[in-house]
Amino acid sequence: MKKGRIEAFSDGVIAIIITIMVLELKVPHGDSIKNLLPLWPVFLSYVLSFIYVGIYWNNHHHMFTVVNKVNGAILWANLHLLFWLSMIPFATAWMGENYFTAAPMALYGFVLLMNGVAYSILASLLVKHHGEDSLLAKAMGSDFKGKLSVVCYVLAIPSAFLNVWISGALYILVAMVWLIPDKRIEKVIHDEQE
Amino acid sequence: MKKGRIEAFSDGVIAIIITIMVLELKVPHGDSIKNLLPLWPVFLSYVLSFIYVGIYWNNHHHMFTVVNKVNGAILWANLHLLFWLSMIPFATAWMGENYFTAAPMALYGFVLLMNGVAYSILASLLVKHHGEDSLLAKAMGSDFKGKLSVVCYVLAIPSAFLNVWISGALYILVAMVWLIPDKRIEKVIHDEQE
Amino acid sequence: MKKGRIEAFSDGVIAIIITIMVLELKVPHGDSIKNLLPLWPVFLSYVLSFIYVGIYWNNHHHMFTVVNKVNGAILWANLHLLFWLSMIPFATAWMGENYFTAAPMALYGFVLLMNGVAYSILASLLVKHHGEDSLLAKAMGSDFKGKLSVVCYVLAIPSAFLNVWISGALYILVAMVWLIPDKRIEKVIHDEQE
Amino acid sequence: MKKGRIEAFSDGVIAIIITIMVLELKVPHGDSIKNLLPLWPVFLSYVLSFIYVGIYWNNHHHMFTVVNKVNGAILWANLHLLFWLSMIPFATAWMGENYFTAAPMALYGFVLLMNGVAYSILASLLVKHHGEDSLLAKAMGSDFKGKLSVVCYVLAIPSAFLNVWISGALYILVAMVWLIPDKRIEKVIHDEQE
Repeated sequence: MKKGRIEAFSDGVIAIIITIMVLELKVPHGDSIKNLLPLWPVFLSYVLSFIYVGIYWNNHHHMFTVVNKVNGAILWANLHLLFWLSMIPFATAWMGENYFTAAPMALYGFVLLMNGVAYSILASLLVKHHGEDSLLAKAMGSDFKGKLSVVCYVLAIPSAFLNVWISGALYILVAMVWLIPDKRIEKVIHDEQE
Repeated sequence: MKKGRIEAFSDGVIAIIITIMVLELKVPHGDSIKNLLPLWPVFLSYVLSFIYVGIYWNNHHHMFTVVNKVNGAILWANLHLLFWLSMIPFATAWMGENYFTAAPMALYGFVLLMNGVAYSILASLLVKHHGEDSLLAKAMGSDFKGKLSVVCYVLAIPSAFLNVWISGALYILVAMVWLIPDKRIEKVIHDEQE
Repeated sequence: MKKGRIEAFSDGVIAIIITIMVLELKVPHGDSIKNLLPLWPVFLSYVLSFIYVGIYWNNHHHMFTVVNKVNGAILWANLHLLFWLSMIPFATAWMGENYFTAAPMALYGFVLLMNGVAYSILASLLVKHHGEDSLLAKAMGSDFKGKLSVVCYVLAIPSAFLNVWISGALYILVAMVWLIPDKRIEKVIHDEQE
Repeated sequence: MKKGRIEAFSDGVIAIIITIMVLELKVPHGDSIKNLLPLWPVFLSYVLSFIYVGIYWNNHHHMFTVVNKVNGAILWANLHLLFWLSMIPFATAWMGENYFTAAPMALYGFVLLMNGVAYSILASLLVKHHGEDSLLAKAMGSDFKGKLSVVCYVLAIPSAFLNVWISGALYILVAMVWLIPDKRIEKVIHDEQE
């Protein structure tokens, strides 16, 4: 089985997820600049989730660059990831509409955690299918960032009930870690070509 | 005629269908965990329908892997399938909002039945177009799972008015049958290559 | 310039248009079968528009099969067609919610007319760009169906104010004419290969 | 890294953005032609934004025609552009629902400005990645239109608070400038082939 259509379908679902979140940004009733101000929590949560979904798309893109073949289990692991990605707009909206209070902040962390888990399952099935000596296995490496993210989410969920700023800081920290360009896969491809 | 664009268009429509269902999961008004609890029927129906649409995408993907050519009738049979898939969000929402009562459960079964019928029509047109000796015809085989599903849906529709648990069990059963990896097409491709 | 991306973008837009129309089919409040009955005009208008958008996707697909190259004007003519296609959900919803009364029926015809005009402009720019001796020019032929459709729409718009059944019959007639498989392009491709 | 998937993902996001704007065109309650009249500002703002998003898609398409390779920074610059494009439906809806008053007109200009800036960042990263002697660098040239657009947006934002007609005229002017076919890239490709 070829990977083309799994990429195309994932691109479609991720494109819709990243775009429907903006529908939560409801048009305010007045027509002055000050009518826009109450929208800041919805806007801020949209920006954060846009970055997170962007990170997933980037990582998915990078990973599939070195994928050669897929099987039935991988198709379902990919759908499982798309399911948890589809929960991000809901968690984002609940968080934004409630001005970043405890329970919505914790749910947001839970959804990110499930996404991280789903991504790990997909990655390990792909590595297993390609073999431990494959380019993919080398490119994935020890997945330090992935493990760090999961630890942060696990800490952020209970922290939300103590102090939402801790959870918020952890979500921003994880996003920053991933925004720093990931040279792993680009490097492995480059080394291979030499 | 090539199959590329029919795959791309189907991927687009299925990606939208699977994603718009999550819009039914409306953000609750309160900001505590207990405000999430009333959402369980909508969430559960979303999970079930996500799996069903995922099954259709997987099967469509598998089947088109061994398709070489399409014609006008196949394009329309594919659109007919997409039409019934587009009814799933409506049936899902009605079922979830009414806590799985009789008529919505029956309608859900009817929509699944029409999807099963539409898929069979598409599959048989494809087999006819490729010939009985084609790789596609071999890969489809007797389509035991497809026939079993249709029988289950036909039983589930009237059962909903007797006891909704029977219908629910049948819908879950059919989903399980399809989640078990379908080795048919993968096997035929593999045999062919030897 | 290659045609791949214009096809992909058109597929995306058409997939969204054909799918968002189903969002007009609002979930009824009660949970019995009779609560579904008032939805018939919305459902019927959805079916009709699904077929029309399906026809446009099919024709677009067929036409681009024999397209080799595009230019800036063709990109805009294609966007112009997508604009009028994007008006179909609005016209469909207005017609369905008002039980097929005069003005909505006339607007529906106007939107179909503008789609027909936009499609003709796109087709003639493509023929001009490929030359009168091209495979595309031969495949388009005299475009009898296209001209007949435009005549029907022009008749249907004023007819809606006399008797909505005339307009309705004309819309169904045009859909039927296009549903009958169009052998022109398939034939020309086949002849070319011999 | 290849450019195929960045194009496909961008096409998906832009297709959704251009289509969800039409959802703001809410179906009126009455069923006579005069019930459509109050929709003119929403319709007009939809037309303008459809053209703007169409211009971005066209330019993106043209630019990527001569792109050979992408890197992590380019992926993020592209996501940054998609983020600002996703703000267009919000700004459009606010402007249309408030009959083109000052603050919404200024916000519309601000969103267009940020899109222009995001596009410039993407273009300059692409040129840097391909080298100053590349086909891409030649095709981009001095980017007179891009610079002119930014100047117009910067003028249009404060002008909205003086007289909304000035801003409106500037937005239409910029759209016209881009609608005139851009021969630069087509020309460079053509010259290269000789």
